[in-house]
Amino acid sequence: MTDDAPPKTPPILQTPRNTLQRLSRRASYNRDVINAILDDGYVATVSALVDGAVRAQPIYYWRMGDELFVHGSRHNALFKSLLEGREVCITVALLDGLVLARSAFHHSMNYRSVVIYGMAREVTDPAERNAVLKASVERLAKGRWEQIRKPNEAELRGTMVLGFPISEASAKARAGGPVDDPDDYGMPVWAGVIPCAVTFGEEIEDTNLQPPM
Amino acid sequence: MTDDAPPKTPPILQTPRNTLQRLSRRASYNRDVINAILDDGYVATVSALVDGAVRAQPIYYWRMGDELFVHGSRHNALFKSLLEGREVCITVALLDGLVLARSAFHHSMNYRSVVIYGMAREVTDPAERNAVLKASVERLAKGRWEQIRKPNEAELRGTMVLGFPISEASAKARAGGPVDDPDDYGMPVWAGVIPCAVTFGEEIEDTNLQPPM
Repeated sequence: MTDDAPPKTPPILQTPRNTLQRLSRRASYNRDVINAILDDGYVATVSALVDGAVRAQPIYYWRMGDELFVHGSRHNALFKSLLEGREVCITVALLDGLVLARSAFHHSMNYRSVVIYGMAREVTDPAERNAVLKASVERLAKGRWEQIRKPNEAELRGTMVLGFPISEASAKARAGGPVDDPDDYGMPVWAGVIPCAVTFGEEIEDTNLQPPM
Repeated sequence: MTDDAPPKTPPILQTPRNTLQRLSRRASYNRDVINAILDDGYVATVSALVDGAVRAQPIYYWRMGDELFVHGSRHNALFKSLLEGREVCITVALLDGLVLARSAFHHSMNYRSVVIYGMAREVTDPAERNAVLKASVERLAKGRWEQIRKPNEAELRGTMVLGFPISEASAKARAGGPVDDPDDYGMPVWAGVIPCAVTFGEEIEDTNLQPPM
């Protein structure tokens, strides 16, 4: 290690708010665990107060380093509220399976989820914003950024790019088969897991040579 | 029609809060559209104020008639807050595809989503609670409720079943290929949709005869 070594990744900040009270054995505050879940999803739910009421919005997100990013219109009411200093709660949930137990009570789901609390910052520095937007596209297809038309000035003016520190965060996950009460294991009913995942189908090429009507 | 006809389904209530301001052409306030999306998902995000801060929780849900239901531990802090009269915002988002356009700006997602605002009620009537819990299991496998062990008194005491009216709600969806700017259609780059969906794999039977260690 020299003085030139890059700064160490800061640890996840554990606070009363992001410390799980229920089923805490399923919780993790490990950054690698959290990042791996975030990198497997595409849609986060961003929740915050807007005009005194809780609003939530599902939105495309991506991760770069220790931050999660979203982008959208500068006129988005939720985004505006976030930039006025409202605290945000961001959740990502990936469903891995339906868990069918021998009792109604022990039916469950296999899942991986992340909750992040914090504040937004707008990414305004042109070079940083370019790198962050590039990552949003490169995530979908490596090398794509160099092939497509980059955002022009008008598009950049109308787009807000927001970053959220992955700091006051937690992961929660369940895996494996059903866990029933001892007396129920002899019941003559099928029990087990129906696994599920988001799968991608065959690509559908757009053969239009001009905008659809 | 006779006087015995069942009550008509109430229309969706459109208010300033659930009226989409952005991309309103993608919005719907039709109950059938909203129900169809809800019936295709398993995980909702429930957002509300808890001790003055916005909290959000991904959770299994199901629909019966004009209500959406969730259940969980009676000690769940978010549930407790909801029953103290906090307003809730519930979102469901289903990802249908990644939309790769010829410009960075027009990259998009195909999705179907629902947002519901409202207040929770606890389902306490034993007969109704039984019917609602039955629906949560029957949704996974038809006929299963009669095969499994029903909830006992202790399990029922520890479980809260909450219902939310599907009333102040909206749907938002995007489908189809990319829509690029006219000048970009000639670019030598692949454009189109990578469709995706939640798919279920082969069932994994639990062959344990007693609880796992």
